[in-house]
Amino acid sequence: MKARVTVYPRREILDPQGKAIQGALSRIGFSEVREVRAGKSFEIDLGTDDAQSAGERLAQMCEKLLANTVVEEYRIELVNGAGA
Amino acid sequence: MKARVTVYPRREILDPQGKAIQGALSRIGFSEVREVRAGKSFEIDLGTDDAQSAGERLAQMCEKLLANTVVEEYRIELVNGAGA
Repeated sequence: MKARVTVYPRREILDPQGKAIQGALSRIGFSEVREVRAGKSFEIDLGTDDAQSAGERLAQMCEKLLANTVVEEYRIELVNGAGA
Repeated sequence: MKARVTVYPRREILDPQGKAIQGALSRIGFSEVREVRAGKSFEIDLGTDDAQSAGERLAQMCEKLLANTVVEEYRIELVNGAGA
């Protein structure tokens, strides 16, 4: 089963990287961009087909390694087998 | 309209960051992880409601700034209004 984990700065935390990208886009002609948030994305291939246990294990990975939950929030999406 | 842009190293390019994360996960008990790919994610708020022009503009942003298309590939997803 594959999963996608996305990690973003929390809404209440400043996102200087996103702000810088927005500024850069604006300067090269993309002035319609209102806001950019910059985060990380991980595609993870798990050796299990059980969606529920996969979701639990992925949440543990996020808490322990992939995200700093003090300043970041994460989202887990199961890519195949998500309906199980 | 909001969009999500994901940028990953191309399949044929080594992904040392993903490899390092996989190793770290394995060492802390997540040995079921077969592969990790590490990339970037951008959430972009555009001042337009036209899905087609939004898609075109986002592709230009990727080519010009968000991705280095020599070594990276990008994917664009429109988050709302995607069905238009």
